[in-house]
Amino acid sequence: MSFDRVWTDAHVATMVARDGDPLGIIEDGAIAAKDGRIAWVGRRRDLPDGAAITTRCDGAWILPGLIDCHTHLVFAGDRAREFELRLEGASYEAIAKAGGGILSTVRATRAATEEELVASALPRLDELLAQGVTTVEIKSGYGLDLGTEAQMLRAARRMAAQRPVSVLTSLLAAHAVPPEYPGRRADFARHVAKDILPAIAAEGLADAVDAFTDSVIGFDAEETSWVFDAAKAAGLPVKLHADQLRDDGGAALSARYGALSADHIEYANAEGIAAMAKAGTVGVLLPGAYYFIRETHPPDIAAMRAAGLRMALATDCNPGSCPSPNLLLMLNLGCTLFRLTVAEALAGVTTHAAAALGLSDRGALAPGLRCDLALFAISRPAELCYWLGRNPCIGRVVVGQ
Amino acid sequence: MSFDRVWTDAHVATMVARDGDPLGIIEDGAIAAKDGRIAWVGRRRDLPDGAAITTRCDGAWILPGLIDCHTHLVFAGDRAREFELRLEGASYEAIAKAGGGILSTVRATRAATEEELVASALPRLDELLAQGVTTVEIKSGYGLDLGTEAQMLRAARRMAAQRPVSVLTSLLAAHAVPPEYPGRRADFARHVAKDILPAIAAEGLADAVDAFTDSVIGFDAEETSWVFDAAKAAGLPVKLHADQLRDDGGAALSARYGALSADHIEYANAEGIAAMAKAGTVGVLLPGAYYFIRETHPPDIAAMRAAGLRMALATDCNPGSCPSPNLLLMLNLGCTLFRLTVAEALAGVTTHAAAALGLSDRGALAPGLRCDLALFAISRPAELCYWLGRNPCIGRVVVGQ
Ligand SMILES: [Zn+2]
Ligand SMILES: [Zn+2]
Repeated sequence: MSFDRVWTDAHVATMVARDGDPLGIIEDGAIAAKDGRIAWVGRRRDLPDGAAITTRCDGAWILPGLIDCHTHLVFAGDRAREFELRLEGASYEAIAKAGGGILSTVRATRAATEEELVASALPRLDELLAQGVTTVEIKSGYGLDLGTEAQMLRAARRMAAQRPVSVLTSLLAAHAVPPEYPGRRADFARHVAKDILPAIAAEGLADAVDAFTDSVIGFDAEETSWVFDAAKAAGLPVKLHADQLRDDGGAALSARYGALSADHIEYANAEGIAAMAKAGTVGVLLPGAYYFIRETHPPDIAAMRAAGLRMALATDCNPGSCPSPNLLLMLNLGCTLFRLTVAEALAGVTTHAAAALGLSDRGALAPGLRCDLALFAISRPAELCYWLGRNPCIGRVVVGQ
Repeated sequence: MSFDRVWTDAHVATMVARDGDPLGIIEDGAIAAKDGRIAWVGRRRDLPDGAAITTRCDGAWILPGLIDCHTHLVFAGDRAREFELRLEGASYEAIAKAGGGILSTVRATRAATEEELVASALPRLDELLAQGVTTVEIKSGYGLDLGTEAQMLRAARRMAAQRPVSVLTSLLAAHAVPPEYPGRRADFARHVAKDILPAIAAEGLADAVDAFTDSVIGFDAEETSWVFDAAKAAGLPVKLHADQLRDDGGAALSARYGALSADHIEYANAEGIAAMAKAGTVGVLLPGAYYFIRETHPPDIAAMRAAGLRMALATDCNPGSCPSPNLLLMLNLGCTLFRLTVAEALAGVTTHAAAALGLSDRGALAPGLRCDLALFAISRPAELCYWLGRNPCIGRVVVGQ
């Protein structure tokens, strides 16, 4: 057999369950790549001859390259001042006066050039890469007009050209109501469905369409369905910010549309969760946002397990409710706050995160899949969840390089 | 004036309050060092001539080198397997059978050589240093016999010789009851006071003495007082793990002994807190442990503010209840979980952390103090608290180097 590269002297968590081991661990294993794909994975002593370049990994653990399937990585400004004022007891009005809230991020993002958006987001992307992330989803949603939404998505695509990483983009124009539409939420949802979305789709800037459904501060189910129908018409898969602050039936809505994922879902009810599982919709848990906004109602993990729902974990990195470009930290938060098992947490940033993005070519280590690897200096995979705010990543491989 | 080094092109948070600004911010400031001490700090345009080596900081913020005033950085093994089992619903017995709990760390630590202890702790120390930490406290407490306690403290001192950092050591022999003293807690406390502590003091291995006081799983007030009396006799200041899981009067006890600090203090009552403030005892808050063990009773910050208690923040890095060598993360946890203000959190890892270690030569930026600096690529100090799991530290200076 002929390979381009081989990694040995490593333990491998394939994330392909076998013999009752959900991590599919191969101790003293090896991985071989050919043309950017995994050509062989197994025990080192069974490795066929024929390697070209061999990397000895000094006993490290190899996992599939990590996948952050929900981020708002591209934005201008930050909200540190707002954070500071809140802790000093400032009222909502005082913060709004000081220029706080999501619209402050919209203002800053509209005022930024594409180059500035890339420059400010790259350090955040670099933090994710340093943790072993090889695929990252990035949403728009701080433009709320066609030009800026397009610019955010172009900035996201440009980052993929500047770093060895896969970037998937989601159009999230239905994120909030812009100042141009005061009290006219439905009108703006129609504008997204009729004008913004088709134009973005025509330019090929989005890999999926997302929306923020919430009966009080987001878009309602009907408005969301206009956006989703437009996405279907444009041939784009959909995702949904659902049931984060109350049960608005977002889980069921996402299932009805066969969404790739419904995200947050702290308040999703058991029926909606079951519908998601049946529809193949992934539940994306965002424990960083749960922690940061001091939510106290955890997602119904028992119902998710009972339904066989695939659960992913992501950073939700954004300036308002989770300023965290740290996917490894989400592993600990998911285990500590939501009581995920280690196996659930790790599947959440690999196989299930891939599914949440509609990707079947990565997220596990098996022949034929993309050779995206993350190497860690740990003694067992549980350490990735156990340490709090520590980064044991010592290497990363993207499409075999 | 003659200086050895000068830093310019920086904003400075001196942590010396002035004009109602608790951070003592100097925008477009400069710092000059001579013989390892700060010789001058002020606005760049007022900087006297005569610099030797000048570092231009490109608009970074300079803070006093950070101080982690409560860690258990030296230990062998980890408890990732125990963490994993707990999440799978394993009973306390099953975990004990699988070798979990603090005594598993004691076993591993006793079996390790001094070299192994240093080698395993150095990466944890390096993570702290990378965040801008220049002074770190390290406790013993996983030996529970003279030989191993001494070895832990020697390992801690050796790390200070291998890295540019100040290490202060605390003897925490009264951390738990060792297997050699089954059901004989008081006997062990007497052994600590009579044998272990004097021997450690005679060797000069400890800068302070600590104890874990808790009516159920620690030492009671009387046993603790034996240890503290022995510390006094040996001329060593004391600290206390106090009122972490219930109100055992630990805060008042620490005040009675004029302790440098009482740490954790989630359940400390307002009287005890007032007594601490009066005695000059610092309250060390450990939000990482609070989070990790899913405690729900936060410390009474309002009472601490009312009493004028100096509050510090530390990692408590340890394998059982807070496996986190991440002091910057504690800033966010302290603000988010305990509602500390940004100014309180930052004082907690600088001025008040120095006080918790009995150090008056550092923790702020003023002439005559040690020139220990931490440089950060941020737009305002609040960013150090706002970002979750991000490290913007770009430089560190220890005694002017
Ligand atoms: Zn989001
Ligand atoms: Zn401790």
